[in-house]
Amino acid sequence: MASVKVFGSPTSAEVARVLACLFEKDVEFQLIRIENFKGPQRKPEYLKLQPSGQALTFEEGSLTLIDSRAICRHVAEKFAGQGNKDLLGSGTLERASIEQWLQTEAESFEPPSSSLVFHLAFAPRAGIEPDETVVKDSKRKLERVLNIYEQRLEETEYLAGDNFTLADLSHLPNAHRLITKVPECAMMFKERKRVSKWWDAISSRPSWRRVVEMQKEPPAQV
Amino acid sequence: MASVKVFGSPTSAEVARVLACLFEKDVEFQLIRIENFKGPQRKPEYLKLQPSGQALTFEEGSLTLIDSRAICRHVAEKFAGQGNKDLLGSGTLERASIEQWLQTEAESFEPPSSSLVFHLAFAPRAGIEPDETVVKDSKRKLERVLNIYEQRLEETEYLAGDNFTLADLSHLPNAHRLITKVPECAMMFKERKRVSKWWDAISSRPSWRRVVEMQKEPPAQV
Repeated sequence: MASVKVFGSPTSAEVARVLACLFEKDVEFQLIRIENFKGPQRKPEYLKLQPSGQALTFEEGSLTLIDSRAICRHVAEKFAGQGNKDLLGSGTLERASIEQWLQTEAESFEPPSSSLVFHLAFAPRAGIEPDETVVKDSKRKLERVLNIYEQRLEETEYLAGDNFTLADLSHLPNAHRLITKVPECAMMFKERKRVSKWWDAISSRPSWRRVVEMQKEPPAQV
Repeated sequence: MASVKVFGSPTSAEVARVLACLFEKDVEFQLIRIENFKGPQRKPEYLKLQPSGQALTFEEGSLTLIDSRAICRHVAEKFAGQGNKDLLGSGTLERASIEQWLQTEAESFEPPSSSLVFHLAFAPRAGIEPDETVVKDSKRKLERVLNIYEQRLEETEYLAGDNFTLADLSHLPNAHRLITKVPECAMMFKERKRVSKWWDAISSRPSWRRVVEMQKEPPAQV
């Protein structure tokens, strides 16, 4: 029985980030999805738009974590000797660079991305009017951070250096949703030559392809 | 928090049967799906073709059940006062008729259905050669039981009488898979006028439509 347990749905960006990391690290784990149903007329609770943090719990023995980036750091450290060994770099300097770009992702990339996915992909489906002021502001913020990436990727192949690390991995869930669900945001990636090449490289990794499959398909069973 | 817990995937026929019953009875419950992952090269365990019984566990307080039809009977009895009140009939005679058709489903309908779904839908996808002898024999058995149903449905609208009961509900998962995944078996239903009408009636129930949606779609989440 796996001692690592992840509670949540692969369609949550937070959960998807952790799954990509576990696959990169070749970690054995159990994924547990819990849905509450309250009678035929009401929708299951998972259809509520959950604040991202609440959708995920990570358990390993008596350790419980709920922040996806903290979980990824823990997994990369705890399972240092297996799977992809570059996720947190191999020295203090590399680690510092990775942490810097992880912070950029969390503070500057994720907020406008989540906001754009919500207002331009989920809200219309749920019959909610998108907030145009928020959309405009988020697009501006996203353009700005993508410009920083474009410049950075002139120097190095990946954000923190020449290897794929947690800094890149952490972008996968939100970038994937922007690119697959919001055509005008997909264009923002495509227009930037280096960002576009970087996205092709990180999104084609087997770990991430596997998460994407899990988001699409119910398990096959007889 | 719901006291009724179902462990399993809606794509399992056994689990789907129980979910349809819980929706008919308007019971609050939690669905818990557990998948084991063992590294990026190996497939998750849920891709193994599981013997049907192993895919399902029902818990209610200290009670644990694993047989889907026993779970349906228990749910219909325990929650007698809510939701659809006809599932087990309203008297000894009706109950006896329902039990008889439930037994026909379990002994004569399910075995050839499961076998045909396995050999004609799942096996080809998994690169397994279908066993032609088994296929031929199963088709013969399925035709025979459908002929019995066609005759029965001349007398009554549903199998056990004029109401939709557990006897009908119990057919939903395997009939659905036959009809949606094996065109030559779909024809067997279509060719029989009363069976075809019966299938249209039972498969369009909101409880079953909801299970079908759960089999198709991953939960929506931000």
